[in-house]
Amino acid sequence: MDERIEKQIAFALEIDKVKNVFRQTHLSSHGRNENDAEHSWHMAVMAYLLKEYANEEVDISKVMLMCLIHDIVEIDAGDTYAYDAEGLKTQRAREDAAKERIFSILPEEQKKEFITLFDEFEACETAESKFAHAMDNFQPLMLNNSNHGGDWKEHTVTAEQVYKRQGKTKLGSEKLFEVTDRMIQDNIRKGNLKSSPE
Amino acid sequence: MDERIEKQIAFALEIDKVKNVFRQTHLSSHGRNENDAEHSWHMAVMAYLLKEYANEEVDISKVMLMCLIHDIVEIDAGDTYAYDAEGLKTQRAREDAAKERIFSILPEEQKKEFITLFDEFEACETAESKFAHAMDNFQPLMLNNSNHGGDWKEHTVTAEQVYKRQGKTKLGSEKLFEVTDRMIQDNIRKGNLKSSPE
Repeated sequence: MDERIEKQIAFALEIDKVKNVFRQTHLSSHGRNENDAEHSWHMAVMAYLLKEYANEEVDISKVMLMCLIHDIVEIDAGDTYAYDAEGLKTQRAREDAAKERIFSILPEEQKKEFITLFDEFEACETAESKFAHAMDNFQPLMLNNSNHGGDWKEHTVTAEQVYKRQGKTKLGSEKLFEVTDRMIQDNIRKGNLKSSPE
Repeated sequence: MDERIEKQIAFALEIDKVKNVFRQTHLSSHGRNENDAEHSWHMAVMAYLLKEYANEEVDISKVMLMCLIHDIVEIDAGDTYAYDAEGLKTQRAREDAAKERIFSILPEEQKKEFITLFDEFEACETAESKFAHAMDNFQPLMLNNSNHGGDWKEHTVTAEQVYKRQGKTKLGSEKLFEVTDRMIQDNIRKGNLKSSPE
């Protein structure tokens, strides 16, 4: 094999490890914890399915690719739960080191391309990254809602915290934020989510 | 919620079930069995990563989408192992019924779009579907190769059967078939794969 394809296949094999990074979200029907590969797959399909609700016109192919690769850094950095205040402090440094190691397996120009795409997602300034972030929020919310807010109960998360996080959805999709808001209110009404700390 | 987005979200939730459809392939480092969502995610990333090796010019966004949705029918139809002769006889009928039920959850025009895409993948006649099939073959081969052919040993699969299946890879990518051929020959040499039934 020539060196180029050897590097590409080494990368393809390396990212297999993302299937062993488990998240706090549980699969529907009160299933097991979800892993990053499944989450990324789900986000990419949902991005395509719901693309008509993006606030701005998006290059949907780019959004899908962002969704597919945005969690690869967690192979080294681990998953940081959205409501883990301590973890969030070191998340950036852990993910930067991971990004450098993992994408360096690729041929140079593909390394640059993937890092650029990952950084664009993280910065959340372009239309594509905003819509990808809406998926990153809405996909676990949808699962958690289907499980009567089990993930929130487990971590005693408050409605205030959920709204803070889900605010980013609004940047990508006003329409999906409306759905989000309805789901949150419904869970507060049913006692699945406390409106403030006890 | 209006009816349209309600249907779309119902579909997004339904396809969560594909994460519980397990395949015969094992994750790298002699891991557990892989599921359809993980496999589809991996195929889509690899399609983008290896797009330069497609025999013909492809719309890579379409290839990725095909990869992402091609196994959704297995929610009802189950996974049919590539070397399960009995299962392969009924695969088409099982998948047709599944296709109708699952995609009917969507608004009519999206149902049509997804079924058209799925059918195009299955027919394996266009440049995009041929390259997607190359991923469908190469991704598990790569994992199995990394596990010293464990999946072949478990099912006493022969090199002849592997070559028959992997032949499709050649239609999508001569270059990836070269890599495939080298991996198969290497496994025969190491005794991981028998060249004919015992």
